[in-house]
Amino acid sequence: MTARTHFDQELEKVHLHILKMGSMVEEAIDKAIEALVKQDEEMADAVIDGDDKIDEMEVFIENECVRLIATQQPIARDLRIIFTAIKLITDLERIADHAVDIAKNTKRLVNEVYIKPLIDIPRIADIVKHMLRDALTSYINTDVDLAMRTCKLDDEVDGLHAQIYRELIALMLEDPRNIKQATHFLFISSYLERVADHATNICEWVIFVETGEHKDLNA
Amino acid sequence: MTARTHFDQELEKVHLHILKMGSMVEEAIDKAIEALVKQDEEMADAVIDGDDKIDEMEVFIENECVRLIATQQPIARDLRIIFTAIKLITDLERIADHAVDIAKNTKRLVNEVYIKPLIDIPRIADIVKHMLRDALTSYINTDVDLAMRTCKLDDEVDGLHAQIYRELIALMLEDPRNIKQATHFLFISSYLERVADHATNICEWVIFVETGEHKDLNA
Repeated sequence: MTARTHFDQELEKVHLHILKMGSMVEEAIDKAIEALVKQDEEMADAVIDGDDKIDEMEVFIENECVRLIATQQPIARDLRIIFTAIKLITDLERIADHAVDIAKNTKRLVNEVYIKPLIDIPRIADIVKHMLRDALTSYINTDVDLAMRTCKLDDEVDGLHAQIYRELIALMLEDPRNIKQATHFLFISSYLERVADHATNICEWVIFVETGEHKDLNA
Repeated sequence: MTARTHFDQELEKVHLHILKMGSMVEEAIDKAIEALVKQDEEMADAVIDGDDKIDEMEVFIENECVRLIATQQPIARDLRIIFTAIKLITDLERIADHAVDIAKNTKRLVNEVYIKPLIDIPRIADIVKHMLRDALTSYINTDVDLAMRTCKLDDEVDGLHAQIYRELIALMLEDPRNIKQATHFLFISSYLERVADHATNICEWVIFVETGEHKDLNA
């Protein structure tokens, strides 16, 4: 077995772990939004409690990456792939933190009658999950085109977030009793917007793997 | 000259760049808060425009780290130091993004008469800048004790943020005309709280350099 083949095999293992971490993170976002919609406190608690496992996963993958650099001493593109893995799991971990943020806000809302049916927040969550999945796929397949397309969805998310913001301010102005609830929704929407930023970061890393250049597409 | 000495020299250069990036980021936070207090739109614009330079600095340091790994092939603790540098500059860059977030909110507030004198937000900003500076010092000197002490300030920041949150909700309930302004202050306070989280992340990396173990102290 050549060293090169060994590196590829080890890399594939890292990629499988990243995919697993990605699906855990996606599920955390999913459950956080479901808990919010259903006002399900138990489910919100499950998201908060589940974060430790995602943190452990991050540390595990980090250690694998460091081991791979130390033992295989990759250069050029191979080094950039590992390097990107290290950066990417930081973004995944932060996305999971935002799922926890959403769950914490949800817990404050479980006993309230919602001032409006939740439509736009689940919609923004759907786009954001879609971005996350495509960002990870673009990494695994080093698909720069997909990475570029995925970044563009960030504008849609920013637009939706701005719209949600305006609506919530209007609801607060309409009736002061809406204020507390609306500020929670405001924060939840801003967390989802941040998740989209992290997915965009991942896409930027994919472009970096191929080109060796890091472009800031969040601006 | 031995390879070891060469590595140390190269590492020192990376550390100087990190310190420079750190002071740029600190200045961004400083100016963002000063612009907010003085309602100075030009200064807010300067913070927003200055972010490109910080992003360039991140990319430059990243490239230096990758080059150092490729040419010097460090192992064990040396590899962890470089690895930590890569993670740390991501945190610095995100802190700078939050300075931009604050500046953007400030621009919406320049023509308003403030509903209350700004005392707690500059106070939380002071603690946060202090945390950032100590986190960087603890990295450069691999001072685990300082890293541990710095993390503990995060609780103080969380407490202050919670207090600001309660006050702003009360102001919104008091008079609906306060709502727009209060939501901007609410976001600004939450950005500062995030900055403290990033400083805590940096401290966690310092502990990782020494122990090889990554602990989540943000929880």
